Amino acid sequence: RYLSKRRQERVRLIGNMLCREGFDLVLLQEVRAAHELSVPLFPSRSGVIGSGLCVFSRFPILDTLLYQYSLNGYPYMVSHGDWFCGKSVGLVIIKISGIIFNVYVTHLHAEYCREKDAYLPHRLVQAWELAQFIRHTSKAADVVLLGGDLNMHPEDVGIRLLRGWTGLRDAFAEAARFEGCEDGCTLVPNNCFTVKTELLPFPLGIRIDYILYKAISSFTVKCEELKTTTGTAPGMDIPFSDHEAVMATLHIQRQGQAVGATLGTAEPTLADVVTEARTEVGVGLRAAQQQRYSTGRMAVLALLLLLLQALAALGVLAGLAAGQPFPKLSFSLLAFLAIGVLLLATGLHLFHTIEVKMLQAGAVGVPRCPPQPHPGPFRSRFLVDF
Amino acid sequence: RYLSKRRQERVRLIGNMLCREGFDLVLLQEVRAAHELSVPLFPSRSGVIGSGLCVFSRFPILDTLLYQYSLNGYPYMVSHGDWFCGKSVGLVIIKISGIIFNVYVTHLHAEYCREKDAYLPHRLVQAWELAQFIRHTSKAADVVLLGGDLNMHPEDVGIRLLRGWTGLRDAFAEAARFEGCEDGCTLVPNNCFTVKTELLPFPLGIRIDYILYKAISSFTVKCEELKTTTGTAPGMDIPFSDHEAVMATLHIQRQGQAVGATLGTAEPTLADVVTEARTEVGVGLRAAQQQRYSTGRMAVLALLLLLLQALAALGVLAGLAAGQPFPKLSFSLLAFLAIGVLLLATGLHLFHTIEVKMLQAGAVGVPRCPPQPHPGPFRSRFLVDF
Repeated sequence: RYLSKRRQERVRLIGNMLCREGFDLVLLQEVRAAHELSVPLFPSRSGVIGSGLCVFSRFPILDTLLYQYSLNGYPYMVSHGDWFCGKSVGLVIIKISGIIFNVYVTHLHAEYCREKDAYLPHRLVQAWELAQFIRHTSKAADVVLLGGDLNMHPEDVGIRLLRGWTGLRDAFAEAARFEGCEDGCTLVPNNCFTVKTELLPFPLGIRIDYILYKAISSFTVKCEELKTTTGTAPGMDIPFSDHEAVMATLHIQRQGQAVGATLGTAEPTLADVVTEARTEVGVGLRAAQQQRYSTGRMAVLALLLLLLQALAALGVLAGLAAGQPFPKLSFSLLAFLAIGVLLLATGLHLFHTIEVKMLQAGAVGVPRCPPQPHPGPFRSRFLVDF
Repeated sequence: RYLSKRRQERVRLIGNMLCREGFDLVLLQEVRAAHELSVPLFPSRSGVIGSGLCVFSRFPILDTLLYQYSLNGYPYMVSHGDWFCGKSVGLVIIKISGIIFNVYVTHLHAEYCREKDAYLPHRLVQAWELAQFIRHTSKAADVVLLGGDLNMHPEDVGIRLLRGWTGLRDAFAEAARFEGCEDGCTLVPNNCFTVKTELLPFPLGIRIDYILYKAISSFTVKCEELKTTTGTAPGMDIPFSDHEAVMATLHIQRQGQAVGATLGTAEPTLADVVTEARTEVGVGLRAAQQQRYSTGRMAVLALLLLLLQALAALGVLAGLAAGQPFPKLSFSLLAFLAIGVLLLATGLHLFHTIEVKMLQAGAVGVPRCPPQPHPGPFRSRFLVDF
């Protein structure tokens, strides 16, 4: 609300465009005030509150679910701000003409520096959790759609992991017609809100916003047309947003015969992709362990300093020392400083301990044992709660 | 590790019991070191790391997923500690004899004072998210099992909401035979680790740990026997844990004909239960809004004090005031205090702002529009990313 440039003007531009274009489904990210985008054409508006995710649908929304990623950057990187936004994935279920659509919208952690991307392990764990969330919640769906700002280039390991693990296809790669920014880029130097220095290595821009899809059971999905906006809004001097919008026209058809589920293991190289992702997460794990150690050591040092000061103060009180060893003011300031460092270091230590655990969980991945045969009707015993 | 009483002894006791009893499935909560419970009988051990949840299975685990609740108490209630434990629900998928089991294990926020339960709105949102998570992820399952410490009495609105929304049945109510603590209680005065004062209004104890189940598609589940432990471990002077373990023997059988899914709206009074839950969440919402306001006001006051001090200091430096208005030490201490209050109040304000958003999302609930008819093969357009 306060940081966005020319906000009200852009909200009006976006609202007008949504009314004019007549989309069936609109997936938005980083929306902080969904009610301002009052679009009368969408009776089933669903603003997934608190996450910045927002879905408008022309068709009735049957059900929704929000999943929060376990890792999302660092709270002390205030300028990056991702941690406070609570990145998550939203699921919206709609039914059109008897076909069940599972529509996912998400926003993964931003990449602030491609050469030294400290957030890559976090983003990879998010991509992994996204893939798992889609797999587990889409088992009754006929068509799966995923749209959002994935903050990954098309060839990045996270995208390959997501596509390989879920069987989702990239609308840009599959589109019969394409119109928009070259190479389908969605963050382009032409857009006046983008940071030009970040895009220096990529003169055309980068493609980090996606529409992915797949059909399970007896349906086919084809992308007839894909479009992007191109910098400025038509007839205006400002763009809708810092990212270009991606617009797809999809053709969905029932097939005569079932083609079988295409869940998981869609590509023969999936095992390699998983190994690559695990290696990257492992690098992040070691960095997190190092930070856990440093912050723990700093907390211990601050505690020692405090104890030393307490001893000195006790000594003065007991009359052991002749005069005051320090001036009162410096002594108090030092004590306050030590308390501040102790609290901060303890908080950071706790945070990095959780980070290590989450990265470990992400690095372990999913056990994949083949199912074993077992005889007829059986008795199952189970035990709960210690 | 450091707070638990007689920890190593109890870990050994639990490990021995698991080996002796030969369970097919073991669901544990508040486990901090799953590797210590090395139970050779369970080849498919799955320790869901970082959440305290742990599942052992005699049958191969095909897949897992962890879902974090959006609300979980307050970080500044350190003595209650729930916030740091990151309460969540774990899903484990196993296949026995061709039957797909979705097994859920969870631990909801504790109730520290039943008369004035400040955590009720959080626990209700958790129960709601748990119900939604089960609904969305169990669509391909034949049998659904949920076990865990729900921290709710059997007649509480959260349990009724969970059961009504998912169609899960209570093993204690359905069991053909029962053996254990009276009324199936799992937190009993007889257990030396329980806090006696909390159980004063309930001389028999309370039942807050559950095994719930249901069969979808063409299966039936019956609970043949339910047992609980009764205070101390057999032949020992200490219990396994502060909670009594719940043990169920379930009989699962294929039916000749499908009985249809029993998902959702299992009880005619579900609408009333949802209304009741919404009212309770609304009470929590107002409390959170009040706290957001108080902490915001405190931050503003601290900021004003700091500005005043800065003005006074500037005045002294500019030589406007003759002498020092305050002694240096008190002046610095006051400034430090103001900075401390400012940081703390800002942090709390941010936290309660997120809490308000999450409670609002929980109070809104799920839209339930009837699906509308729509003609044959169609084109769907959708738009992504602003």
